[in-house]
Amino acid sequence: MKKAISIGEYLIEQLHAHGVGHVFGIPGDYVLGFYDQLAKSKLVTMVNTCDEQGAGFAADAYARMRGLGAVCITYCVGGLKVANATAGAYAEKSPVVVISGAPGMNEREKNPLLHHKVKEFDTQKKVFEQITVASTVLSDAQTAFQEIDRVLHAALRYKRPVYIELPRDMVFKTGIQYYRPEEIHEQSDTETLRAALAEAEAMINKAKKPVWLADVEVHRFGLQDVLMKLVHKTNIPVATTVLGKSVIGEQHSFYLGVYEGALGRDDVRRYVEGSDCVVMLGAFLTDINLGIYTAQLDPMRTIYANSEKLSIRYHTYENVRFKDFMRGLLKLRLRRRKLGKIPTPPPIGSFRAKAGNTPVTVKRLYQRINDFLGENMMVVADVGDALFGATDLFIRHRTEFLAPAYYASMGFAVPAGIGAQMANRKLRPLVLVGDGAFQMTGMELSTAARYGLNPIVILLNNFGYGTERHMQDGAYNDVLLWHYSKLPEVLGAGKGFLVKTEGELDKALEEAKKCEHTFCLLDVQLDPADRSPALQRLAERLALGVSSARVV
Amino acid sequence: MKKAISIGEYLIEQLHAHGVGHVFGIPGDYVLGFYDQLAKSKLVTMVNTCDEQGAGFAADAYARMRGLGAVCITYCVGGLKVANATAGAYAEKSPVVVISGAPGMNEREKNPLLHHKVKEFDTQKKVFEQITVASTVLSDAQTAFQEIDRVLHAALRYKRPVYIELPRDMVFKTGIQYYRPEEIHEQSDTETLRAALAEAEAMINKAKKPVWLADVEVHRFGLQDVLMKLVHKTNIPVATTVLGKSVIGEQHSFYLGVYEGALGRDDVRRYVEGSDCVVMLGAFLTDINLGIYTAQLDPMRTIYANSEKLSIRYHTYENVRFKDFMRGLLKLRLRRRKLGKIPTPPPIGSFRAKAGNTPVTVKRLYQRINDFLGENMMVVADVGDALFGATDLFIRHRTEFLAPAYYASMGFAVPAGIGAQMANRKLRPLVLVGDGAFQMTGMELSTAARYGLNPIVILLNNFGYGTERHMQDGAYNDVLLWHYSKLPEVLGAGKGFLVKTEGELDKALEEAKKCEHTFCLLDVQLDPADRSPALQRLAERLALGVSSARVV
Repeated sequence: MKKAISIGEYLIEQLHAHGVGHVFGIPGDYVLGFYDQLAKSKLVTMVNTCDEQGAGFAADAYARMRGLGAVCITYCVGGLKVANATAGAYAEKSPVVVISGAPGMNEREKNPLLHHKVKEFDTQKKVFEQITVASTVLSDAQTAFQEIDRVLHAALRYKRPVYIELPRDMVFKTGIQYYRPEEIHEQSDTETLRAALAEAEAMINKAKKPVWLADVEVHRFGLQDVLMKLVHKTNIPVATTVLGKSVIGEQHSFYLGVYEGALGRDDVRRYVEGSDCVVMLGAFLTDINLGIYTAQLDPMRTIYANSEKLSIRYHTYENVRFKDFMRGLLKLRLRRRKLGKIPTPPPIGSFRAKAGNTPVTVKRLYQRINDFLGENMMVVADVGDALFGATDLFIRHRTEFLAPAYYASMGFAVPAGIGAQMANRKLRPLVLVGDGAFQMTGMELSTAARYGLNPIVILLNNFGYGTERHMQDGAYNDVLLWHYSKLPEVLGAGKGFLVKTEGELDKALEEAKKCEHTFCLLDVQLDPADRSPALQRLAERLALGVSSARVV
Repeated sequence: MKKAISIGEYLIEQLHAHGVGHVFGIPGDYVLGFYDQLAKSKLVTMVNTCDEQGAGFAADAYARMRGLGAVCITYCVGGLKVANATAGAYAEKSPVVVISGAPGMNEREKNPLLHHKVKEFDTQKKVFEQITVASTVLSDAQTAFQEIDRVLHAALRYKRPVYIELPRDMVFKTGIQYYRPEEIHEQSDTETLRAALAEAEAMINKAKKPVWLADVEVHRFGLQDVLMKLVHKTNIPVATTVLGKSVIGEQHSFYLGVYEGALGRDDVRRYVEGSDCVVMLGAFLTDINLGIYTAQLDPMRTIYANSEKLSIRYHTYENVRFKDFMRGLLKLRLRRRKLGKIPTPPPIGSFRAKAGNTPVTVKRLYQRINDFLGENMMVVADVGDALFGATDLFIRHRTEFLAPAYYASMGFAVPAGIGAQMANRKLRPLVLVGDGAFQMTGMELSTAARYGLNPIVILLNNFGYGTERHMQDGAYNDVLLWHYSKLPEVLGAGKGFLVKTEGELDKALEEAKKCEHTFCLLDVQLDPADRSPALQRLAERLALGVSSARVV
């Protein structure tokens, strides 16, 4: 008979069983008991960040890389600090387990005013019900294991965050092994699936110029191999959305680039919008993915399949699982085409710094970075030109580009770089972040220093909220000029560079490449009026608002 | 006839009418229109912080000083970052108006996936319903003015935060002046009030050694003058709770000190617990106020009056307003006593630094600060020994001590110091903060630099989460050692000091006093095992949990 274990230990075991090797967070008295278990466990490693917000973003990035992530914080004063990061994980389908300490059940009787309590004891849970896909308070040893299973299952099934509240007097209680009924695997309705696949087959085979448009769910649901087989079998090329960028490696000969309506590369837009059969796989029709509704995708020529919906032309098939549909596509008799000339990402070419004091421009900065990116690097982008400029970067392998490309929360990138590198120590993150976002969470470089991580942080310093300047400007778009390159002196680690010219950029990147033992921070000073063309077009659209959102 | 004004302008007018002169926040596209109105308004000044979290804490401090505060941020990615600060304001009764930009009503049709959206368009509102006392979405020009009035009224009445969501297409719409019915002032039930006062009169007059125990609501409801009159009329001395600290100036001859059960000064505890009539005015029975339930207050000898409850001994009077009760006390025939010998805060005495390399201890640090505090200073304390050590500081005037002494969110003090100084530019904040908390929000010193504020920040650097070390220690209680005194080089402003010895402390404080044009940051390095006796006792209690919370 298996040794009886405590609720806290069971939670750690189950996290580990689903791929979690690191838990991000900050301790507090209501969660200290569980921290002790985490510290003693050989299954997971604790990673302390500076602020809970940083832990939330790091866990999100980790979940995107590993398939599940976890953040562990104390009651309310810790938990509510990760509300925003959790909401971002919800919006962009990243399965993060939020574990919150809490007052013991034995302390709650008579509803006393314990520190960190907001209103009622369940206030925090009610908040997280709004921004997670399942939540529980482990208030009963009889059901605790079952509840942990239920909630983790929801995270894995829906690829969304979940909330587990662990009252401090429950941590060490022995849970009850329960009778596990055989798992019922959700299944597609067979006949509906068959009909949908038959229609898809006819539509794709009839098309002269079909295209796959792959988004983030292909990655979240582990269907990247299926996608590649589809591509190879049919010779149909593939584009991705910006949120889905790096769902396939971008060196692939069938890869067109990122499609995002009028905001993206024009040759990609023309190819996708000129297609007579766009098969959207795992796609979200977000405003940013759709180039702020500049995308012109005719539903009559669209197959739209994701975990929530399957539509072909103007009709919808119910009860078809996304996985079954994608795997079904692979079994169809889809004809193999000759691969004609397709748009490809611009050649990288080797970058030559201009002589003298030529200032760095956004455009040239990205050209230089493209040249710089190596096999062992990944890219983590924050919001603004850190993201939009980065869409044309050439990403070598799958899942090596992370960005909050829908929820668009500033301050994501530096802590996400930490989470990403914890998830895969073989990759060195190149973090792209604006100065405004850096001032929110950039001090998490302290966490990189503490755990010996070595991200290269490119700070696009345009002295304010650059994206907003193009919508409407005012003093509120300014931020104080920090001397960022001196931060290593404060942190006692890292290497800082002040970059104004192309020559300095060249030199700094070369040094950063060699400097593998610590993080590097490049303060790249740009003209405040400079921006990528994509950002300029985006800013103009965002300022207008969206009067006629078109949804498939 | 009055000129018709827009919804945004009306909101600004009403904020101003209730004492708000500064709005804290960070812009974003959904709130840019309103930011433009704020920037153009002569009634309020915008204060940009580095992160929204900082804006939330600053607005909370501002509200505590001014009676109302406001934070203005963008939809979800901004709003959810202030969830924790707003929850703290709720718990400690600070009336903060959270104003969030949002997608326009015209953009919401068909429920498109607009950036920053989490789940549904009302997700953020549902979150804030849990942590505010009233909330509204200004979705209709017909009712917008009325809704603004209703929500602001709730903030002022309950001294709690409120939430106003302003869709971007509503900002410039003209609101409708509505018929304002005569305000119905809530009134106490006359006979109940009379009976309660009669009983209180008899009980107080009969007592041999009565005492007032004043808490934060005396301040929030503007009853400080009433309290002082009661004290002068009766010669009954007054103690405060830790959350209520500085509800009266501590130089007052009738002032005993802070009562917090076994955690506070022993002479105060003996006096209060030895009293045969403790009149608790505007008090919260929180665990921290009650010295983690070490307080021994016999309900048989207690009058307990606040905005939510009025109890005398074991019975309760319904429908009596706190204000009416306190004002009623003043009209009673309470007998005037001879003021005997009462405990008083220890004399400040002038501090003499010990010669040589005598390291600074927590105890001696606070002695030195007590000596240092001047007439034009106020104290803002963060959590841990920054708070508990500070309870014995001698605060000159009313409302010159701010701390999250119930909700206890780390990271409060630095941004709160900014909010406090914006609320009263005549005071110079002395900010007490641990290194763990500083790493969360300390970079908001950037905001101090930007707006020419000059707080003196005393960083109690014990190389980790000191409070927790005394409960249960592990590597998770460590934080990276920053070279804090070099931060001014990063920010291009401020003055940094590294302090290890008493001599260095002396010198740094004297320099800081003279350095009035910018902020000063003293990195005071302490022995990690050192702590105030209060903190040690507190940590021991917190680690135990509370098995038998006793609530009046």
